[in-house]
Amino acid sequence: MKRHVLSILVENHSGVLSRVTGLFSRRGYNIDSLSVGTTEDPKLSRITIATTGDERIINQISKQVDKLVDTVKVVELIPDESIYREIALIKVSANSKIRPEIVGIVEIFRANIIDVSTETITAEITGNESKILAFVELMEPYGIKELVRTGVTGLQRGANIIKEYNELED
Amino acid sequence: MKRHVLSILVENHSGVLSRVTGLFSRRGYNIDSLSVGTTEDPKLSRITIATTGDERIINQISKQVDKLVDTVKVVELIPDESIYREIALIKVSANSKIRPEIVGIVEIFRANIIDVSTETITAEITGNESKILAFVELMEPYGIKELVRTGVTGLQRGANIIKEYNELED
Repeated sequence: MKRHVLSILVENHSGVLSRVTGLFSRRGYNIDSLSVGTTEDPKLSRITIATTGDERIINQISKQVDKLVDTVKVVELIPDESIYREIALIKVSANSKIRPEIVGIVEIFRANIIDVSTETITAEITGNESKILAFVELMEPYGIKELVRTGVTGLQRGANIIKEYNELED
Repeated sequence: MKRHVLSILVENHSGVLSRVTGLFSRRGYNIDSLSVGTTEDPKLSRITIATTGDERIINQISKQVDKLVDTVKVVELIPDESIYREIALIKVSANSKIRPEIVGIVEIFRANIIDVSTETITAEITGNESKILAFVELMEPYGIKELVRTGVTGLQRGANIIKEYNELED
């Protein structure tokens, strides 16, 4: 079971997100993370979907996504040729005694503290998935009260733009 | 027309994303951005939806989301009481002559350069929406080749966890 990251350029119409995600759920295929936002062209949005599963099925779903009228382009981001980023916000239990210890870990990871209360500390961390997972693991002993993640987004390295990315193989 | 950010805690089942987004599209209600990822509990995911529109309709949709069997909790994040973050990756045209100028802007915004090619430079920027928009605006004159955004994610400030956040008003 391989990890796949699909990058999908779509027209900014109501319902496109529900149609795209419906193609995954109709096959009982779980989406690990999804992020969508506007692009350099206000008429277009870009959906990034991370999923784990059978290559043949992911190829079939991609082709169905490609056939939707709102889809401009769908490509798979290849790990070696792409940059991935994600942001996580983590709220951890921390009284004033334990706080410096957490601040130390936050600094090592070049994360940032974005909120402090008498009982908690909240940090933001940006990076690829393995960096975020490593940080979360180190926070676990303190007691994670809340963890929210944007889901991965990504671009191909180099000068290419998505319309020039390699097509999915048949 | 006000900006609304909904934070929705759901069980990690196939199809939940399509059901949630379907409630928006069925009313022709456009989602500005959506991000979803796993949480502190591997059985639960958290969906953050940013949308602009009529308060009455967003309340109706929220109540319908709340009624879905997979929904654990739905709350609206209130700007003054919440922290929002988003990440954008921006690929800009830049030859070696123009590169230092762009690096200067990247430093001012505490953004990071994550890829360089002979014709382009790619930066990541983390922040709230207004910071990202200001950065994008400054990059525009150089020629934005690609822009991808995760969509906003957020948490309430302080020690509360989502299950203790205030309910939506009637």
